[in-house]
Amino acid sequence: MSEVAETLDGWYSLHLFYAIDWTTFRLVSEDERESMISELESFINDRTHVRESHTGDHAIYNITGQKADLLLWFLRPEMKELNKIENDFNKLRIADYLIPTYSYVSVIELSNYLTGKSDENPYENPHIKARLYPELPHSEYICFYPMDKRRNETYNWYMLPIEDRKKLMYNHGMIGRKYAGKIKQFITGSIGFDDFEWGVTLFSDDVLQFKKIVYEMRFDETTARYGEFGSFYIGHILNVDDFKEFFSI
Amino acid sequence: MSEVAETLDGWYSLHLFYAIDWTTFRLVSEDERESMISELESFINDRTHVRESHTGDHAIYNITGQKADLLLWFLRPEMKELNKIENDFNKLRIADYLIPTYSYVSVIELSNYLTGKSDENPYENPHIKARLYPELPHSEYICFYPMDKRRNETYNWYMLPIEDRKKLMYNHGMIGRKYAGKIKQFITGSIGFDDFEWGVTLFSDDVLQFKKIVYEMRFDETTARYGEFGSFYIGHILNVDDFKEFFSI
Amino acid sequence: MSEVAETLDGWYSLHLFYAIDWTTFRLVSEDERESMISELESFINDRTHVRESHTGDHAIYNITGQKADLLLWFLRPEMKELNKIENDFNKLRIADYLIPTYSYVSVIELSNYLTGKSDENPYENPHIKARLYPELPHSEYICFYPMDKRRNETYNWYMLPIEDRKKLMYNHGMIGRKYAGKIKQFITGSIGFDDFEWGVTLFSDDVLQFKKIVYEMRFDETTARYGEFGSFYIGHILNVDDFKEFFSI
Amino acid sequence: MSEVAETLDGWYSLHLFYAIDWTTFRLVSEDERESMISELESFINDRTHVRESHTGDHAIYNITGQKADLLLWFLRPEMKELNKIENDFNKLRIADYLIPTYSYVSVIELSNYLTGKSDENPYENPHIKARLYPELPHSEYICFYPMDKRRNETYNWYMLPIEDRKKLMYNHGMIGRKYAGKIKQFITGSIGFDDFEWGVTLFSDDVLQFKKIVYEMRFDETTARYGEFGSFYIGHILNVDDFKEFFSI
Amino acid sequence: MSEVAETLDGWYSLHLFYAIDWTTFRLVSEDERESMISELESFINDRTHVRESHTGDHAIYNITGQKADLLLWFLRPEMKELNKIENDFNKLRIADYLIPTYSYVSVIELSNYLTGKSDENPYENPHIKARLYPELPHSEYICFYPMDKRRNETYNWYMLPIEDRKKLMYNHGMIGRKYAGKIKQFITGSIGFDDFEWGVTLFSDDVLQFKKIVYEMRFDETTARYGEFGSFYIGHILNVDDFKEFFSI
Repeated sequence: MSEVAETLDGWYSLHLFYAIDWTTFRLVSEDERESMISELESFINDRTHVRESHTGDHAIYNITGQKADLLLWFLRPEMKELNKIENDFNKLRIADYLIPTYSYVSVIELSNYLTGKSDENPYENPHIKARLYPELPHSEYICFYPMDKRRNETYNWYMLPIEDRKKLMYNHGMIGRKYAGKIKQFITGSIGFDDFEWGVTLFSDDVLQFKKIVYEMRFDETTARYGEFGSFYIGHILNVDDFKEFFSI
Repeated sequence: MSEVAETLDGWYSLHLFYAIDWTTFRLVSEDERESMISELESFINDRTHVRESHTGDHAIYNITGQKADLLLWFLRPEMKELNKIENDFNKLRIADYLIPTYSYVSVIELSNYLTGKSDENPYENPHIKARLYPELPHSEYICFYPMDKRRNETYNWYMLPIEDRKKLMYNHGMIGRKYAGKIKQFITGSIGFDDFEWGVTLFSDDVLQFKKIVYEMRFDETTARYGEFGSFYIGHILNVDDFKEFFSI
Repeated sequence: MSEVAETLDGWYSLHLFYAIDWTTFRLVSEDERESMISELESFINDRTHVRESHTGDHAIYNITGQKADLLLWFLRPEMKELNKIENDFNKLRIADYLIPTYSYVSVIELSNYLTGKSDENPYENPHIKARLYPELPHSEYICFYPMDKRRNETYNWYMLPIEDRKKLMYNHGMIGRKYAGKIKQFITGSIGFDDFEWGVTLFSDDVLQFKKIVYEMRFDETTARYGEFGSFYIGHILNVDDFKEFFSI
Repeated sequence: MSEVAETLDGWYSLHLFYAIDWTTFRLVSEDERESMISELESFINDRTHVRESHTGDHAIYNITGQKADLLLWFLRPEMKELNKIENDFNKLRIADYLIPTYSYVSVIELSNYLTGKSDENPYENPHIKARLYPELPHSEYICFYPMDKRRNETYNWYMLPIEDRKKLMYNHGMIGRKYAGKIKQFITGSIGFDDFEWGVTLFSDDVLQFKKIVYEMRFDETTARYGEFGSFYIGHILNVDDFKEFFSI
Repeated sequence: MSEVAETLDGWYSLHLFYAIDWTTFRLVSEDERESMISELESFINDRTHVRESHTGDHAIYNITGQKADLLLWFLRPEMKELNKIENDFNKLRIADYLIPTYSYVSVIELSNYLTGKSDENPYENPHIKARLYPELPHSEYICFYPMDKRRNETYNWYMLPIEDRKKLMYNHGMIGRKYAGKIKQFITGSIGFDDFEWGVTLFSDDVLQFKKIVYEMRFDETTARYGEFGSFYIGHILNVDDFKEFFSI
């Protein structure tokens, strides 16, 4: 058995993707539609105190292309809080006009490949705490994709000695560092929770940076030999203040 | 031909996953909805005596994310009893508002990789009986996933000598033991019954333990080289007493 | 080119799987539902003479789990008779409440791997005739799955010398023999007819035997190295006399 | 780069598959249904002059099993004529009761693996012209499947020297010749047009011949090592004169 | 890590594919349908000034076969403009009768495999600018397909030295040049934006050229060993002036 690389785990995470059923939404009277949008606005605003008290966070984006229209990302200290949010959201009146298209269940994760070992309790380290229980940026664009490490016959990530994995992850991390200031990256672990092993959520004000970092990493051995990807989702920020315009027909 | 590893088989098992169609359920009057929920409560309560007489068991969970809303897991001594339960469930009035999303047909299974051979009839051994005809825990969280052993060109589980498989399964089992007290694990065999070879159902009051055990096992050769996984489902317990609140709109 | 293993071909075969749309069926008045069920009963009973005159056969089972509710299996001397049966079935009034979920087009097949060559016309051999034009058992349980022989880079069934294939199939057949009396097995060939190469239909009064035989065969080289499987369907017999109860809501 | 094997290209080809929605079609009054069927009959009959003037052709079959009910195959000198036919067909009133299930876009193709090179313009050769612009048979049965040549790591068709490909295709063709008189075969090329590289359409009055030829070819190296297949569709001829009966409920 | 091949990136790109729901569109009164078509015409015409001011472009085609009926391709300087176009399009009244079937998010890309390095800012080079911010042709036919470079165990594009990739891409480009004057080719990069790595959009007045170029390239090592393809879409130009006829029933 290869040595296990321990992880640090923070807030639980739920990405919810919905398509809007404009055809039936148009059949609703304008008054009713406005009332539904107000209810949705309240639903989001009621959860802003969580952000303020730093007991969770959320982000809402308008997805480009037909995979979805909306991405709602929620972070909370307990998984069951995410169940409750999802159930409450699905009972909103506007949810009758939203079609679920994809979701992702995971938990904010830091791998210890890059951290040194010490006697310190990492959960008390303020730098680590800030990454495990993060405040999400309000960047203009978001990028989400799930991924696996390959277990092929010749190249099997999980059979590599930990020293090799550490070296590969170090080089991989060095590429990421070049994008500091341009991209904010959040890794969520989903082994045992969802169908891929990790989710990657990126934020940037310059959407081209998403292509640049993913492209550059593809030539890195960690990705070139061992990375396997699910679907990529790109979105533009959707502020509560813009709901009225966004949902108007 | 490799030596076959015999199995012990207990109760038949049926996992049923449903999404709730809130859009049409909302159209039903509150009175009718309450009556439907009562009918569902009775359906479950009527099956509680089975648990009490230890002639089967069941568990109901609220799935996180959009793969499903409900998981109902039923165990019974005969496969045809599961057919009857499924048919009866689908005829409940509330089932008109439930959309089938996935199901799994299997049987509680113990492999004999880990048990010594003896003259004893294992089906008379009280420890084995307790595992073949189990009483399900009421833990806060559930995790379900189906899996296969790989039959690749280089690494083919079913072509390995039984001694190699025994050693691999022993190491694999040692990881599982570390989670005793934190996780209750149930293996159901589905070769010939459903599309994967086994289903794994885990219960825990700490959802993070699911990630920890599946992650740790991924570095174990049995999984790293030979494990192939289907979808992972995570859920939070849904008690009959909470049906009214859960289904209220 | 490897030597082709000739086949003997009997009756054409059509497996039809349907889910029942209980939601809309419930909207139908009880009188009308009964009339629809009577029409379905007549449709099946009208085809019983085919069984009696031994010019075909059929079997109807209730599938466990959500892949389907009904399996109807028809055997006939001509493929176009199966087209006609399918079209006639789809025009039954009850078919408005049945959703097609899967089907399989094939022909009862005996491979000559296991038969000796002789001057005899095998189609005149009564033992072979009984297997090519079989009378289906009324066992309590059915199991259906389609399968392929793998054509991988290292292990390619169709590039093996016929002597190797014969030996592998002989060993494979020896496992099958152990289940004589417990399981009745029907192989239907579908190369050129449907998406897999063969369909396997098993009948037994003890559903666990399906798991035992498929599990045991998985350790046999023929399956371990060369077998590739589609979905597995398990069902419990549904007699015409039980239609009324089965379809009642 | 391997030497490219040039192709000769004839009429453009569009296979359209539809399922019939009997549930909603039954709701239409008998008069209206008859009028819809008459409109469909006229649509087909109006295109018969194309066959007579040899500026295209078409064939209509009733598919066995649940993949589709109808296959309409159209051949025309220009791709845009196929767009027009498809659009016109979809605007027929009966098309409201037909659900598109699959389609295939290609062009009648002859590979020059088997033809000798000469100074002659092959498009002037009457034997070649007859195959590029064919008159379709009215056989009782049809078989359609799309296919690829594999580009695996060890066995990559497109990296083979042309002499090897020629030899393989020659042997492959020799099998085909054995079925002359029993099967009429049409190859359509779809590289750049649709998701597989070729479509194969076979006609025969004896449906078992489809299984025999595809089975025999599977042992041929060209198929065994390099063939990759999509779905197989089998159908029985549906003449315009039989529309009334076929569509009657 | 292999040396990264830098890219030049131009306009953002959104391919939108829709099927037309003729069944429900037919239920709309002719007057209303005409009004919907006029609204669609205005939507497109309003975006023509973008083409005239060279701040973007668009193309509309009628797809052959059942994968879709319409392809709308939009190019814009900012990704969020594409979000706005998509949202506005989906709010058109005619969009109630259009079913999204596929979409592709990317950016016009030039790889520098083929360009020499110099001190010049390539974004100031008029030849490069013309390709990054192109004026789309109004050719009769379009072809779209997404593709990946393979990362297999033996043949892994991203592990090749840049000199090897340059040589392979040079040979690959030489094939493309042979089609100059017959085909206009646009490459859009989608690593980090969508599920494949690149989209290829081809225009030609002779649809057969699409087959010829894709077929010829398949024998080229770059494609034969490293190319992996998604679905191929073929379409015929649909001018705004032809909307009325195209949408008439």
